[in-house]
Amino acid sequence: MLLQEVFDEIDKRKDEMVKHRRHIHENAELSFEEEETAKYIADYYKDKDVEVTTNMGGNGLRVVIDTGKPGKTIALRADFDALPIKEETGLPFASKNDGVMHACGHDAHTAYLMLLADVLNNNKDKLKGKIVIIHQHAEETPPGGAKAMIEEGVLDGVDNVFGIHVMSSMPSGTVQYHKGNTQTGRSKFAIKFQGTGGHGSMPHLSNDSIVAASHFVTAVQTVVSRRLSPFENGVVTIGSFEGAGSFNIIKDSVTVVGDVRAMADETKEKIGKEIKRIANGIGETFGMEVEIDYTSDYPVLYNDPEMTQLVIDAITEAKIPEVTEISDCGPQPPSEDFAYYAKERPSCFYYVGAHSDKAPYPHHHPKFDINEDAMIVCAKSMAAVAIKYLGEE
Amino acid sequence: MLLQEVFDEIDKRKDEMVKHRRHIHENAELSFEEEETAKYIADYYKDKDVEVTTNMGGNGLRVVIDTGKPGKTIALRADFDALPIKEETGLPFASKNDGVMHACGHDAHTAYLMLLADVLNNNKDKLKGKIVIIHQHAEETPPGGAKAMIEEGVLDGVDNVFGIHVMSSMPSGTVQYHKGNTQTGRSKFAIKFQGTGGHGSMPHLSNDSIVAASHFVTAVQTVVSRRLSPFENGVVTIGSFEGAGSFNIIKDSVTVVGDVRAMADETKEKIGKEIKRIANGIGETFGMEVEIDYTSDYPVLYNDPEMTQLVIDAITEAKIPEVTEISDCGPQPPSEDFAYYAKERPSCFYYVGAHSDKAPYPHHHPKFDINEDAMIVCAKSMAAVAIKYLGEE
Amino acid sequence: MLLQEVFDEIDKRKDEMVKHRRHIHENAELSFEEEETAKYIADYYKDKDVEVTTNMGGNGLRVVIDTGKPGKTIALRADFDALPIKEETGLPFASKNDGVMHACGHDAHTAYLMLLADVLNNNKDKLKGKIVIIHQHAEETPPGGAKAMIEEGVLDGVDNVFGIHVMSSMPSGTVQYHKGNTQTGRSKFAIKFQGTGGHGSMPHLSNDSIVAASHFVTAVQTVVSRRLSPFENGVVTIGSFEGAGSFNIIKDSVTVVGDVRAMADETKEKIGKEIKRIANGIGETFGMEVEIDYTSDYPVLYNDPEMTQLVIDAITEAKIPEVTEISDCGPQPPSEDFAYYAKERPSCFYYVGAHSDKAPYPHHHPKFDINEDAMIVCAKSMAAVAIKYLGEE
Amino acid sequence: MLLQEVFDEIDKRKDEMVKHRRHIHENAELSFEEEETAKYIADYYKDKDVEVTTNMGGNGLRVVIDTGKPGKTIALRADFDALPIKEETGLPFASKNDGVMHACGHDAHTAYLMLLADVLNNNKDKLKGKIVIIHQHAEETPPGGAKAMIEEGVLDGVDNVFGIHVMSSMPSGTVQYHKGNTQTGRSKFAIKFQGTGGHGSMPHLSNDSIVAASHFVTAVQTVVSRRLSPFENGVVTIGSFEGAGSFNIIKDSVTVVGDVRAMADETKEKIGKEIKRIANGIGETFGMEVEIDYTSDYPVLYNDPEMTQLVIDAITEAKIPEVTEISDCGPQPPSEDFAYYAKERPSCFYYVGAHSDKAPYPHHHPKFDINEDAMIVCAKSMAAVAIKYLGEE
Repeated sequence: MLLQEVFDEIDKRKDEMVKHRRHIHENAELSFEEEETAKYIADYYKDKDVEVTTNMGGNGLRVVIDTGKPGKTIALRADFDALPIKEETGLPFASKNDGVMHACGHDAHTAYLMLLADVLNNNKDKLKGKIVIIHQHAEETPPGGAKAMIEEGVLDGVDNVFGIHVMSSMPSGTVQYHKGNTQTGRSKFAIKFQGTGGHGSMPHLSNDSIVAASHFVTAVQTVVSRRLSPFENGVVTIGSFEGAGSFNIIKDSVTVVGDVRAMADETKEKIGKEIKRIANGIGETFGMEVEIDYTSDYPVLYNDPEMTQLVIDAITEAKIPEVTEISDCGPQPPSEDFAYYAKERPSCFYYVGAHSDKAPYPHHHPKFDINEDAMIVCAKSMAAVAIKYLGEE
Repeated sequence: MLLQEVFDEIDKRKDEMVKHRRHIHENAELSFEEEETAKYIADYYKDKDVEVTTNMGGNGLRVVIDTGKPGKTIALRADFDALPIKEETGLPFASKNDGVMHACGHDAHTAYLMLLADVLNNNKDKLKGKIVIIHQHAEETPPGGAKAMIEEGVLDGVDNVFGIHVMSSMPSGTVQYHKGNTQTGRSKFAIKFQGTGGHGSMPHLSNDSIVAASHFVTAVQTVVSRRLSPFENGVVTIGSFEGAGSFNIIKDSVTVVGDVRAMADETKEKIGKEIKRIANGIGETFGMEVEIDYTSDYPVLYNDPEMTQLVIDAITEAKIPEVTEISDCGPQPPSEDFAYYAKERPSCFYYVGAHSDKAPYPHHHPKFDINEDAMIVCAKSMAAVAIKYLGEE
Repeated sequence: MLLQEVFDEIDKRKDEMVKHRRHIHENAELSFEEEETAKYIADYYKDKDVEVTTNMGGNGLRVVIDTGKPGKTIALRADFDALPIKEETGLPFASKNDGVMHACGHDAHTAYLMLLADVLNNNKDKLKGKIVIIHQHAEETPPGGAKAMIEEGVLDGVDNVFGIHVMSSMPSGTVQYHKGNTQTGRSKFAIKFQGTGGHGSMPHLSNDSIVAASHFVTAVQTVVSRRLSPFENGVVTIGSFEGAGSFNIIKDSVTVVGDVRAMADETKEKIGKEIKRIANGIGETFGMEVEIDYTSDYPVLYNDPEMTQLVIDAITEAKIPEVTEISDCGPQPPSEDFAYYAKERPSCFYYVGAHSDKAPYPHHHPKFDINEDAMIVCAKSMAAVAIKYLGEE
Repeated sequence: MLLQEVFDEIDKRKDEMVKHRRHIHENAELSFEEEETAKYIADYYKDKDVEVTTNMGGNGLRVVIDTGKPGKTIALRADFDALPIKEETGLPFASKNDGVMHACGHDAHTAYLMLLADVLNNNKDKLKGKIVIIHQHAEETPPGGAKAMIEEGVLDGVDNVFGIHVMSSMPSGTVQYHKGNTQTGRSKFAIKFQGTGGHGSMPHLSNDSIVAASHFVTAVQTVVSRRLSPFENGVVTIGSFEGAGSFNIIKDSVTVVGDVRAMADETKEKIGKEIKRIANGIGETFGMEVEIDYTSDYPVLYNDPEMTQLVIDAITEAKIPEVTEISDCGPQPPSEDFAYYAKERPSCFYYVGAHSDKAPYPHHHPKFDINEDAMIVCAKSMAAVAIKYLGEE
């Protein structure tokens, strides 16, 4: 049986997968600067019977495995950028690039998918249709790599897209998913209130931007408290109030910088509209000029129910020995640029538990690590999905 | 000597003055409704050799004492309206009109001036120029009687105006004054924030006017705290927040009603402009319709320094036995429509102490009373002012 | 087959059910004052072979149908109180009690359950266990009737409870449900800020309660915007700001009255704690005395997943001709005191669509009405639930 | 006549005075670091028949001119520190110390007083009593030099103190004064709101210090708008809101730094009490720890009416040819540590106009300069004051 053969090959080549992961980990590169990593991936595919496009939308790669037979086209995506974090794991393969670290598991995503691509390619005579492997750069930093890769055609001919995130917060052995809106959409904004500076003892000759910006902060709370339904999920955080100055000088301008999260694109749009109205209204209230720099970045990640059910069914039927449980984890607060693929094609993005006693730290932590066994679950579960999806010859 | 003769006549006719005061007190009438009081005053002058105009600008009276000789024209003003207060003095001559009370001393103003007018008229052969007695209605309630009387010509031919307020807060025997801006100007406003009502559990389908109006209240504090110079005197009070409703219904509209005081007309204008800008800005901030009803009423009362010095000199030189002290009391928070006369002619409005152990209550208190001896000080001091001003033949 | 016999009897006695509904509608009584309605219900059961307890926890009734055979005990609940709304339906059976109206469908709940009780009683030889019919008073007004009936033992011996709400917002023919937290919990509060009154021109001698209460309103927005998770559902509404006064008098005290909704009991408790802290903090900030009257009333209504699945299965299997669809309606914002039963026993509360062209108005509207055919769906669906639950002999 | 002789000597030695001023200007030193300037002054007095105390309260000097005859003791004070401002005057004697500038005229104060001290010393046989010359360091920076010099006895035996400030905002030739409270008192504060940081998408796990501090800024406006009488003069400015951070991280702590000015010591104290109460109240409201660092620095400068009248009379009688006008300039917003002397002894601090077409820039401006002729007015007017005060033999 094909699935069993594939699983056996994955088990046999585990060390190779681990080697890839550790190499990528050791040579971590920031979003949009992943040139060596992209070259490493490209080298890997050099002598294989696949079609490789490099520098797609930046440092991205598209690898096509063509069975030569008619059928559907599935895309499998893994990201390969790292974070501006100084690694403190003490691992023998810790990052050699100071202040840059794979603290989110993208090294594992890439390693499992490199292996799986080769395994599937080796077995393509038993499959139908095509497999598109998306090695995506720059997931961590807006505008992200997905958008540019889509613009350059990475989804051309693709019917559906699947992706995985390893999760140090979920127990090893579990596979988790959610149907529908699953990860938040996000926007970012910077709003400048421009008043007039002056001596602290003569407020009437100035126009105090700290007072205006403070009223903005109190007023913007009403976006969540009064403009959203109690069943809508949204957050507005002012993370930065840039108002440092001298104690006795009235501050001429303040910039507030904030973050928006929402679990539905309508909510995200509504929040943006409200924030802008409030900023302009506060400007009028206090006679300030207002400059608004508002960027809507990653959309809400929507898991197509049918594709998600296919994932559930494929993994359940595959009876993967390492999988102890498959369950609904509910919606997740972080944002993810896989959402762009999911806006273009019915898709599913699911989670593979990678927590262990040795890997108890949260994502983006300087001591973050994963249980490398989780990569086996990634490779086998995604193999099951691809095979069920494409169908055996 | 004329002054002594006038003082003697005032002393002799004290009972008559008291009788007038008590009659007016007992028959207190609200602002703009003082028809019986006006008739009582008019009757008093009927057989005297003076020229009386009634119903001036409403219930006001203008009485002209003409010496027949060339000279300046002085106006002396007293007001005669009462307040919507239920009297609790227990006086034998307490108000017979339930809920209407002379709780500010206008009865005493009118009584002393009725007497003084007659005394001066009796002595007009020894004086030069003309004396215009202004018996003014409706001082307590904007738009006040002064404005309408001026519009109907009460100041025609008049050079300067003088007036007195008895003060239960100042010791009997004292005369007090201030030069320059002396009593505040005033404005009044009502601002309606019109949102949309709805069920308390579904804020996104409504637009909460209580939240918007509360932000208005917090923002409007900045008019005084940030828009005025520390040496400007101004107050903005929201006295009424009309937002009662049901606990679980989002309130569709709120009206806030407020009061403005300022000790300079520029300050008053600036405050008005700021309040309107803030109201409109809050409307934009929260997406509300805003209706602003803003009325500027009494101006700042400005005491002409020269006329005030004349008052000081006249009273000092007159050596009135009942006067123990004449001093500067500084500016006074309440507003007063004598300010309209003072905008038209160099004028002076001064204070006569009327506090006593029997009259310890503040103005507008249900137990307010005055020491009736203060009326002697009013009559004699104003006699001294008029005689010094006009000059003896 | 029992179910078919029961359905036939329901169909045959539809007019009787309608008559009960219209009688109750015409004689609408307010919560806690439903004496005539309770008597009407009690009379109905008088000659039937059931055990009736009246005046339970107030005007409530408990009716026990005992099959005489061992088995489980199911409780079916309907409420029978009306609302303080002036009816404007123009129906021939419109309320004869002026200003009191069945504008929420409790008349229909009671009527269908009266009929169903009798039908089940007539067929009790074919059933096992016991059926407890709960005719509950006072659902609309906290503290509600459920709590008191439970305290007096209405659930003694009961294993599980089921209830229905007819919904003019859902299409006739549909049955809708939700598993887990389904209707919000609720609290109510009144907070008094006691400052000191005084003249509008002298703020330093007063302590302005309108300013303090306005800051409370702006600060309390942060409970929802900052203290709840984006995946928690909660609302805080200040529905009433009792601050009316005179424009030029500083207001001595203000009471704000508000409503809390939450879709989890932990959320409800957290909100209560936060509101109290903010109120006391604002009191300290502005030097005010604060009086807090905080009442936690109905809890979150939790539908037991197993009992809800039983409802779904029973109705699906029964193939009720009038039912066109059975689906998940998601959580619902209103609160409901059925929640108290659901806290005591695994229970399910579900919805029967009653919208029609003739009944398009929302609940609590003066023109609210239901499609009376919905009562057939109520009776048949609950019959199916009861029979499946108890099992046939 | 003594006065004329003194005036003649001043006129004759004008160049010497200018030379001192320019030397001090060129060698500007910051507050508390004026060692070279102090040495320069000490050297000047070395061979004169006066008693010099150096290093008083820091870099201050006390110089005693003893006439040897009984009488009163007058103190004359001049300050000699400079400001952290980069000079842009382009003057040939511009500051050689980069970033340090005499941009407030203290160089002129010191120069005129050095000359005047010598002239008076040369004429001490014609005078009675003693003259104490106070060369004070560190006026610009709290806690200031006056306080420490007083603590070390600079006022021992002194009856009254006089001082001058040259003013580039007042026309050359004018001498200006105000009786009573004349320059504001000042306080400074830093308040830290300590919450809990966290991810922007999970506000419930954090406690947002930007929100709390913004509410503090809006609430603290009420100190001026509601806690002060409209006739009190006070300002509260938050000049610095130190809240910069990352857009998607909830800020763990914010420090706000502010400035208080008041024209009466009671007002200053009241404001301090209110700010602290509001800070603590906001801390309670939002569950934050609050750290308050509140420093009351310079008191209100109170000009004794009698001493001020002596100044007016002395200057008027002296008929100084360069003085074109002597008038009341009203209260002045800046603070000044001469206030400490005025709290200890009845004193007067007055102003000498130094504005000219060549010196049109405000104090503390990088192009600030004075009309050096103003130093003649300083020396002659203070000579007149000292001679009138002490009396001629």
